[in-house]
Amino acid sequence: MEERELKELLGRLRKKIDRRLEELLPERKEPGARVISAMRYSLFAGGKRLRPILFLLAAEAAGGPAEDLLTFACGLECLHTYSLIHDDLPAMDDDDLRRGRPTCHRAFDEATAILAGDGLQALAFECFTHPDLRARVPAERLVAAIHLVARAAGIHGMVVGQMADLLAEGRRISLEELQYIHRHKTAALIEASVVSGGLLAGAEESVLASLQTYGASLGLAFQIVDDLLDVTGNEEELGKPVGSDERRGKATYPALVGLSAAREKARDLVERALSALSPLGPPAEPLRALALFVLTRKN
Amino acid sequence: MEERELKELLGRLRKKIDRRLEELLPERKEPGARVISAMRYSLFAGGKRLRPILFLLAAEAAGGPAEDLLTFACGLECLHTYSLIHDDLPAMDDDDLRRGRPTCHRAFDEATAILAGDGLQALAFECFTHPDLRARVPAERLVAAIHLVARAAGIHGMVVGQMADLLAEGRRISLEELQYIHRHKTAALIEASVVSGGLLAGAEESVLASLQTYGASLGLAFQIVDDLLDVTGNEEELGKPVGSDERRGKATYPALVGLSAAREKARDLVERALSALSPLGPPAEPLRALALFVLTRKN
Repeated sequence: MEERELKELLGRLRKKIDRRLEELLPERKEPGARVISAMRYSLFAGGKRLRPILFLLAAEAAGGPAEDLLTFACGLECLHTYSLIHDDLPAMDDDDLRRGRPTCHRAFDEATAILAGDGLQALAFECFTHPDLRARVPAERLVAAIHLVARAAGIHGMVVGQMADLLAEGRRISLEELQYIHRHKTAALIEASVVSGGLLAGAEESVLASLQTYGASLGLAFQIVDDLLDVTGNEEELGKPVGSDERRGKATYPALVGLSAAREKARDLVERALSALSPLGPPAEPLRALALFVLTRKN
Repeated sequence: MEERELKELLGRLRKKIDRRLEELLPERKEPGARVISAMRYSLFAGGKRLRPILFLLAAEAAGGPAEDLLTFACGLECLHTYSLIHDDLPAMDDDDLRRGRPTCHRAFDEATAILAGDGLQALAFECFTHPDLRARVPAERLVAAIHLVARAAGIHGMVVGQMADLLAEGRRISLEELQYIHRHKTAALIEASVVSGGLLAGAEESVLASLQTYGASLGLAFQIVDDLLDVTGNEEELGKPVGSDERRGKATYPALVGLSAAREKARDLVERALSALSPLGPPAEPLRALALFVLTRKN
């Protein structure tokens, strides 16, 4: 699949996801509606929708009707957005800008941003159990997929990863510790997005194993490229200042092993992701193209 | 059921819940383990376990094998504990003490407390989909119950309720707005705990309707009694200073309608909760005793 074709596909999927998210989280008028506005502010801030797209492409690669699974995909984006809002908080990374706009706590206030993150995490699980999914997917598969995602978002993934990342700030850490951070903070949810797509599509064990290797490798590659962009990227394309990792003493792959070793590691991981997909044949073509695209992305 | 008998039952259930929570969240040794310690600090701070107990008693009242549902019950306590940790944060209610001990962000730090709350919310959904439940409960029921709870914890319950509560601080609000706050912030999760117990036990529609009225009424009564205790309670029994609501200009039932009207309202609500249970007969006896106990509690 050519890059142009992939970009068209990504655009189409992003539009579908955005439309469904809009239905799932409309503005409201009631005493507590401010938090809904804050959730919408961050949810509709122009995200790439990488996790829900990976989920949908994995479901299709596994032969499932991805169309039926859109609401689950939206829940994954809610989880990702919640984690960005909380990571940006003053007590955490204390970021003022995200995708070129004020972060949630800057546009609203800290309490509202904490609640917006909390609300998005709850909304994710509301999506995962939405009646429109219950009508189309066997409940056993839904429960298994939710379990996987809850672990990856929580204390077997994102949450312990962010904790370790904060504790690593300003310290010189080992490559092992850095890999723990990347694996938990970023790769776990990407991997869970891919695997849950296969799971909901009814994929058999061997296909799930392929998707798992793909997701885990791509997730790590994604984080390394992120770290590289913070060093070598273009502020305008990124929508945030470059060099912020170094300024705050963040442990990153390029800082630990150097730029060229980091680039090589990212390439190796994408290579690994691609070869994991070989048993899946043509239906996995978009997943392959996406892995290559992640490697060359500019933001 | 006499109060002594009820207290024994509550003690037994609390022990079971605590034991299971201990299994579900053991200490760990890894780079991000600090957040696990913080989660445990707040989860094992001597909570009453009201929500999981209500859930288990509702399941038994509906004729279900509550023993099989313990892990789901534990998830409800995780949700409640997460909400306490986040409510106590400096950006929210800024509380230093909870149950006579430093709040999570005082014992650890703000970032860790935010993550501990996030981790407990995720752990709740990990519990709700735990393999030991999947072996014992039809998956359709699990999915329906999770949906209900996710709504009550999120943007149809706790999260919008806490938002409205914060926005009401220092303002004179209407009784209508106060009821919105109570209904969402406190009653929604209590109601969802009761109804999901019935749901997982396979209760029919009419029983679920009884449980819903019971849970919603009891939840409101619980919040009014909470507000009353903040005015008339004993600091030592409460484990926190009294009069804090008034000091921070919190809208409360007693502040809005006076002490005696607030007491009467709580009694009326418990009355309503009790009469909703009449079709359920003897298996609902513990739920009845608990409703009366909530009215006379001292902490």
